[in-house]
Amino acid sequence: MQFACRQKVLFRHCDPAGIVFYPRYFEMLNDCVETFFDECIGWPFETVHKEAAVPTASISVDFTTPSHHGDLLEFNLMVVRLGTASMALEFRATCGEELRLKGGSTLVYVGPGGRPQPWPRTVRDAMADKKWGTQ
Amino acid sequence: MQFACRQKVLFRHCDPAGIVFYPRYFEMLNDCVETFFDECIGWPFETVHKEAAVPTASISVDFTTPSHHGDLLEFNLMVVRLGTASMALEFRATCGEELRLKGGSTLVYVGPGGRPQPWPRTVRDAMADKKWGTQ
Amino acid sequence: MQFACRQKVLFRHCDPAGIVFYPRYFEMLNDCVETFFDECIGWPFETVHKEAAVPTASISVDFTTPSHHGDLLEFNLMVVRLGTASMALEFRATCGEELRLKGGSTLVYVGPGGRPQPWPRTVRDAMADKKWGTQ
Amino acid sequence: MQFACRQKVLFRHCDPAGIVFYPRYFEMLNDCVETFFDECIGWPFETVHKEAAVPTASISVDFTTPSHHGDLLEFNLMVVRLGTASMALEFRATCGEELRLKGGSTLVYVGPGGRPQPWPRTVRDAMADKKWGTQ
Repeated sequence: MQFACRQKVLFRHCDPAGIVFYPRYFEMLNDCVETFFDECIGWPFETVHKEAAVPTASISVDFTTPSHHGDLLEFNLMVVRLGTASMALEFRATCGEELRLKGGSTLVYVGPGGRPQPWPRTVRDAMADKKWGTQ
Repeated sequence: MQFACRQKVLFRHCDPAGIVFYPRYFEMLNDCVETFFDECIGWPFETVHKEAAVPTASISVDFTTPSHHGDLLEFNLMVVRLGTASMALEFRATCGEELRLKGGSTLVYVGPGGRPQPWPRTVRDAMADKKWGTQ
Repeated sequence: MQFACRQKVLFRHCDPAGIVFYPRYFEMLNDCVETFFDECIGWPFETVHKEAAVPTASISVDFTTPSHHGDLLEFNLMVVRLGTASMALEFRATCGEELRLKGGSTLVYVGPGGRPQPWPRTVRDAMADKKWGTQ
Repeated sequence: MQFACRQKVLFRHCDPAGIVFYPRYFEMLNDCVETFFDECIGWPFETVHKEAAVPTASISVDFTTPSHHGDLLEFNLMVVRLGTASMALEFRATCGEELRLKGGSTLVYVGPGGRPQPWPRTVRDAMADKKWGTQ
């Protein structure tokens, strides 16, 4: 099962070529991950970031087809591996049947000093039923 | 030989954790590519985009160490392959001796309708002496 | 009557001080105006911008209280004057009962060459019943 | 005397209409203020923000003429009033002889809890010779 969130392509996302400027896709992806933590894990980023952080350690994306102003995008997110302090995600965005991007990223859970630390139980429990991923 | 451009980490790049928010790195990378086209190829983006575009088809980055507000980053860029209508880049950013990120991307040269088209001679000539890459 | 749209303060909006970085408020305001044109005037920005544009000619904002990550903001928008080619807006954002910002802006409707031109009938009609403003 | 900083209009600043998206001007202005604190006051933002902050309390801008991709902008900044805990700025941006924007803003110096506090001596001293403003 995958987490889905929708995002209309807005004026602020688009470049002089009239398509989404690719750094804006990463903002959309971050919003999607933030919403996933809030709605699926029950651990919103504003709580996580009081004492810790979940920086992105790596990310890789193929932009298969450009998106235009007004397009209705659906982002799908799946946790493919939960490590001790890391989380591997796979994602894609589509507009109707058309693939716009696909890729993967790895997040790391770090403490105040930026050192990786084990995910808290709330994350492990949320992943235990394999509802949002393959593990 | 590699193209280098410098960027101080500014307030607007940083997140509540006090480090660079990773989508801002992609803005920095885009600025770096834009400066490379201007200064090394002699074909500034404002000219390119009058009738064409160079969208990013794929990108992959490892963020090895976080960057903090005030850090002086040096971005290095190298063209590793020039295809008919594509350009493969490798890049990294360092702060002093410390690696902050490394990765690669592929750009595509497209015409008004978004269709790939052969790079103009100005690009081929600029790459011919292998000054900025391996090809 | 005022147009309202909601925006949760997300990670990407916030600065190292943990509050909304003020240029992000202008992105939120632009999203709000874009949604207003879509939902209230029935003339979405992706249609407007095929042949014209509605640049902001001036804007003035008081940021009365900072907003933090996770805050649920409500933006309220009102058209206070519809000129031949201009539109004066007033807006404010609140979190619960607390005012976060208030201000005003003027938009101008311009044609392909950037020259002001009269609003089309769809805008005049939408404003005629004074539903979304005072005129 | 005014502080000046230059900024080329880059691809990332521009919208589908091919001109600077106005929230990007506020990012440029913030960069300019940050550089002013660093170079003229000798108190870089990365030091300021270790224990305090200088949020923008209000801002007002007239965008007199649009800026296009590739334009070379010069921002001019002047401190028009230094209060106990506030600083009033006036600024404008030009491209050659042409005015692109002008406006003013008020910054406030706040401590860890977000409460206004008196500017430190380094700021008062830097302003004392009236070099960067009228007070």
